[in-house]
Amino acid sequence: MIVLFTDFGVGSPYMGQMRAVLARSAPAVPVIDLFADAPLCEPRLSAYLLAAYCEEFPAGTVFLCVVDPGVGGARRACVLRADERWYVGPDNGLLNVVAMRARELRWMDLEWRPERLSASFHGRDLFAPVAAELAQGRIPAARAQPADARVDRSWPQELPRILYVDRFGNAMTGVRAERCGAQTLLRVHASTLARAHTFSSVAPGEAFWYANANGLVEIAVNRGRADLALGLTVGDTVQIIPPV
Amino acid sequence: MIVLFTDFGVGSPYMGQMRAVLARSAPAVPVIDLFADAPLCEPRLSAYLLAAYCEEFPAGTVFLCVVDPGVGGARRACVLRADERWYVGPDNGLLNVVAMRARELRWMDLEWRPERLSASFHGRDLFAPVAAELAQGRIPAARAQPADARVDRSWPQELPRILYVDRFGNAMTGVRAERCGAQTLLRVHASTLARAHTFSSVAPGEAFWYANANGLVEIAVNRGRADLALGLTVGDTVQIIPPV
Amino acid sequence: MIVLFTDFGVGSPYMGQMRAVLARSAPAVPVIDLFADAPLCEPRLSAYLLAAYCEEFPAGTVFLCVVDPGVGGARRACVLRADERWYVGPDNGLLNVVAMRARELRWMDLEWRPERLSASFHGRDLFAPVAAELAQGRIPAARAQPADARVDRSWPQELPRILYVDRFGNAMTGVRAERCGAQTLLRVHASTLARAHTFSSVAPGEAFWYANANGLVEIAVNRGRADLALGLTVGDTVQIIPPV
Repeated sequence: MIVLFTDFGVGSPYMGQMRAVLARSAPAVPVIDLFADAPLCEPRLSAYLLAAYCEEFPAGTVFLCVVDPGVGGARRACVLRADERWYVGPDNGLLNVVAMRARELRWMDLEWRPERLSASFHGRDLFAPVAAELAQGRIPAARAQPADARVDRSWPQELPRILYVDRFGNAMTGVRAERCGAQTLLRVHASTLARAHTFSSVAPGEAFWYANANGLVEIAVNRGRADLALGLTVGDTVQIIPPV
Repeated sequence: MIVLFTDFGVGSPYMGQMRAVLARSAPAVPVIDLFADAPLCEPRLSAYLLAAYCEEFPAGTVFLCVVDPGVGGARRACVLRADERWYVGPDNGLLNVVAMRARELRWMDLEWRPERLSASFHGRDLFAPVAAELAQGRIPAARAQPADARVDRSWPQELPRILYVDRFGNAMTGVRAERCGAQTLLRVHASTLARAHTFSSVAPGEAFWYANANGLVEIAVNRGRADLALGLTVGDTVQIIPPV
Repeated sequence: MIVLFTDFGVGSPYMGQMRAVLARSAPAVPVIDLFADAPLCEPRLSAYLLAAYCEEFPAGTVFLCVVDPGVGGARRACVLRADERWYVGPDNGLLNVVAMRARELRWMDLEWRPERLSASFHGRDLFAPVAAELAQGRIPAARAQPADARVDRSWPQELPRILYVDRFGNAMTGVRAERCGAQTLLRVHASTLARAHTFSSVAPGEAFWYANANGLVEIAVNRGRADLALGLTVGDTVQIIPPV
C-alpha cells in the first residue's frame, strides 16, 4: 500500500500527477490519500501528524511524504525504513518524528535521480517513482547513513501546538493522550479544558479535550465547533497542565 | 462496489483511514467516494440525500454510511438490505428514508464488535470492516429485527429543505421531481420559481427549478449562482406549490 | 488510464457518479482525478489548462473532459484522438487547444447516445460510458469529421490569463514558458515580475515568475502567497514583456 501525505491541497492536480506515476510504475499497488492538507509548508508540524497517523498502517506500507517548501534548493532527499514501514520524502524534518520514535530504523540518502527532474515538483519526478519501487520490494540507489548523524533528537517528543482542524471544527494537537492523565487540563488562549471520554460525555456546547481515534489530544465542542468557539487555528500553541 | 457516504469533509484523513481498512480487508472491491460532505451532523437531512443517490447503483452495492454525531454514545449500529443493496451505519435515522422506500427490506442490528473500538471513529473501526465483509458476500454477526419496529414511518416521503449546494451554486432539495408537475412552483425565502427543463431553457441570470440528474427538485440560475442570488444554504426550508 | 478533467468541484458527488459508471464498465482501468476544479463554466480557459497537463500522460490515455455550461442545449459531443491520446467531451471549445497543437489528429462527432440521457449530466450518462469504451479499445458510434472544419485555429497559441490558483497561492497562466526567455518580464495588475529558476532562488517575500513543472508560466512568492500579495484570481489578464 502506498499512502500519500502532502500539503498540496485537497483535489490539487499534483495529487493526480503523482497518482498517474504510481499507476504506471506500480499498477497493482493500492494508493490511499491520507492527508493532502497537512500544515502548509510546515515540515515540523507535519512531522508530528505523520508520526501519529502512520502507526495503524501495516508492515510494508510506503509513505510518500511531500511537505517540501525547499524543493529545488539544497535540501537532500531520503528514504527511511522505520518499524517495518517505508517513508520517502525531503530531508527537511518531515520524517524526523517517525525516525525519533522508531524502535528499528534504517536511514538512506537517496541518490537515484530521474531523467526529468523539475525544479519545483520532486513529488512527481523523484519521490513517486521511488515509492513505486519500494512498494514493489525494490530499493532505489541510496546510501545508508548512521541514524545518529541524521535524526535530530533534540526535538520534543510531543508538540503542544494545533496541527489540524477538521470539518467538524475539532482541533488536533501534536500531544499523545497516553502521556496525559484523566485529570490533565489543557489551556489554549483564554480557555482551560478538562478531559472527557467523547462528545456525548459532556453537555451540548461544552468544550473539552479527549484522546482522538489516533491517540492525539484533540480539542472539541459537543454539537459545536471548537475552532470557532475558542478561536483555534493550525499552529496555535496549547499548554498541557498535569494534575497537581 | 463499496460507496462512501459521510460528512467527514472532502479530503479528510478519515476517508483515507476507512479506505485503508477496505484496501486490506476487501482488496478486490472498488471503492467510490460519493459524498464526503453530506449535511454536517444531520442524519435526517443526509437520509434524503442518500435515498436519492443510491438508486442508480447496481444490486450488491454496499453503502458505508457515516453521519454519526452520537458516536460513542448509546445509539445502535445496523445493517440493512434494501432492494438488493446493502447499507451499514449508525441507527440514528440516516438509513430511515432508504428503509421507508424499500420494496424489500431486511433490518439487522449489528452485534459484531472489533477488538479495537475507538470512542469517536466507528466508521473506521466498526462500519468499514463490516462493509468489507458484506462486499465479499459475508454477513457479520447481526440480529435480524422486524422492520416495523425499527423503521420510523412517520417521516414524510419528501423533505422540502435544501440538502446540498454544489460548486455551481445549485441547491438540491429533498423533494422528488416526479411528485411535481410542469406547473408546480417552488417558493424559497422571498422568491417564487417556475420549473424549466434545464439551464439553457431560461434566460441568463434567471432562477428556476428543475428535475436534476438524480430526480430531485433543484434550484438553479442559468449562468449564475442560485445560492448567492437567492441566499440559500443547507437546511433552508422550501415550499412546493402545486398548480391550482 | 482514464483521467478526469472537470469543473464539478473537488469531492463533488458528480465525480463519484462518473467513477461508478467507469468501475462497472471498465473495471480494470485505473482512473485518475486530475482537475475537478478547472475554471468554472469556462471551457476556453480550461482548454489551455488541459492542453498543458495532458502532455505527460502516456499513449492510450483517455481524458474524460467535462466543463459543460451548455449541457442539455444544442452543443455537440465529440471524441478526439490527438497524438495517441483520446479525449471525450462537449464540443464547446474545451478540446480546441489540444486539437490546435496536435501533430496527429482525428476528430469525431459522437453519435452514440445512451438509453438514459439526463438534461444536465452528460458527464455521467454520455461521456463516462464513451471513455470506458475508448479505454478498452472500442470506438463508440461516431462520425469522422475533417479537423479543418471543427478546429478553430483563430485561437491564440498562448493565453495570457490566470487559469488556476493552487493551495500555495501560486497562479498558473496559459502561457508556455518555452516561448519566453530568461529576461522576459511578466506584468500583472500593478506589478512587474522577473523570471527566477525556483522559489529558493529569490528572497523570502519576493514575487517572481517561473516555468512550473508542467511548462507553464506561473506567478509565485517565495514563502508567501502570490494570490494575496498581488491580488490574483482566475481569469485575470497578464502581460508578457519580451526583452527589448
